[in-house]
Amino acid sequence: MSLNYRLILASNSPRRQALLKSLDLDFEVKVKSIDESYPSNLPSKEVAEYLACKKSDAFGTIEAGSLVITSDTTVVVDKMILSKAKDKEEASNMLQTLSNRTHEVVTGVCLRTASQTKSFTETTSVTFDELNQDTIEYYIHTYKPYDKAGAYGIQEWIGMIGIKKIEGDYYNVMGLPLNRLHKELLTFN
Amino acid sequence: MSLNYRLILASNSPRRQALLKSLDLDFEVKVKSIDESYPSNLPSKEVAEYLACKKSDAFGTIEAGSLVITSDTTVVVDKMILSKAKDKEEASNMLQTLSNRTHEVVTGVCLRTASQTKSFTETTSVTFDELNQDTIEYYIHTYKPYDKAGAYGIQEWIGMIGIKKIEGDYYNVMGLPLNRLHKELLTFN
Repeated sequence: MSLNYRLILASNSPRRQALLKSLDLDFEVKVKSIDESYPSNLPSKEVAEYLACKKSDAFGTIEAGSLVITSDTTVVVDKMILSKAKDKEEASNMLQTLSNRTHEVVTGVCLRTASQTKSFTETTSVTFDELNQDTIEYYIHTYKPYDKAGAYGIQEWIGMIGIKKIEGDYYNVMGLPLNRLHKELLTFN
Repeated sequence: MSLNYRLILASNSPRRQALLKSLDLDFEVKVKSIDESYPSNLPSKEVAEYLACKKSDAFGTIEAGSLVITSDTTVVVDKMILSKAKDKEEASNMLQTLSNRTHEVVTGVCLRTASQTKSFTETTSVTFDELNQDTIEYYIHTYKPYDKAGAYGIQEWIGMIGIKKIEGDYYNVMGLPLNRLHKELLTFN
């Protein structure tokens, strides 16, 4: 599968880079840092796409022949956004919040070339079993999930033993909605 | 997480071995080959568990202190079972059958110790986008999915670009229902 654009992935996440690589596409990585604040009245499910577009804007004018992919993944539970945990206590509180219920993983993506912009949101529902304190502590201690929204990785131990069911795109929970992303990329050709 | 049994995984599949490993459990691999036939009047969704139990029976009496895990994964579409494809043409036909519809991945598991047996079935629904002939040919040529029921791996390129949505346990589609398996293993402690 080849595209007519030079792809630029604006993410330092090794998970996102590995996911895009598995689409058998070539790309380079270029990241512009932004202030990740958002309007306080923005509905929680719109935050990811808002931030993806903000990351894209930071690139300014895109060079002809290039296509920049920016994205943001949020964990939304009860209209509340769980971002990355700063320490053990925050990670533990987040996992207690996710225990025994369904939450949504919302990824916003923005695709931009010199002349065209397309942004979209993909949502996957994730249902955790009840997580007891031992499980939560073992996971945090062993896997140190401080780089992950909601303090968990579905591809890690806790995702395997703790997640009863998902509904939607699995790869979206890992950080990129590969199915939708691939379809949208093809519309740029 | 440690169990009170020596685990034996009865599968040569590197995928299944990697999945069980990611539960942070120690195990050894021991496989007994069986005749994988089943009664022709068996409902298609019961075949996987039937074969898992047949694989377990092949172990005869289980040594005290050991727990044997056998399993079988089938792809069921319209009550029809898709097993492994023998050649390019069969693989292509299977993927055409799966295109643009929802099918079920059914894994049957049998857990057995010297004194206790427990078997169960876990089902995940998988919805493919429309797969065109170019996509199917590129996938078969590049990934040679002849070792996989239904001629696809969800963790491979076609699973990423072609699967719109799943409902259930992702790891079940890869070959082991890790969430349920882990819970059931704990009941043996």
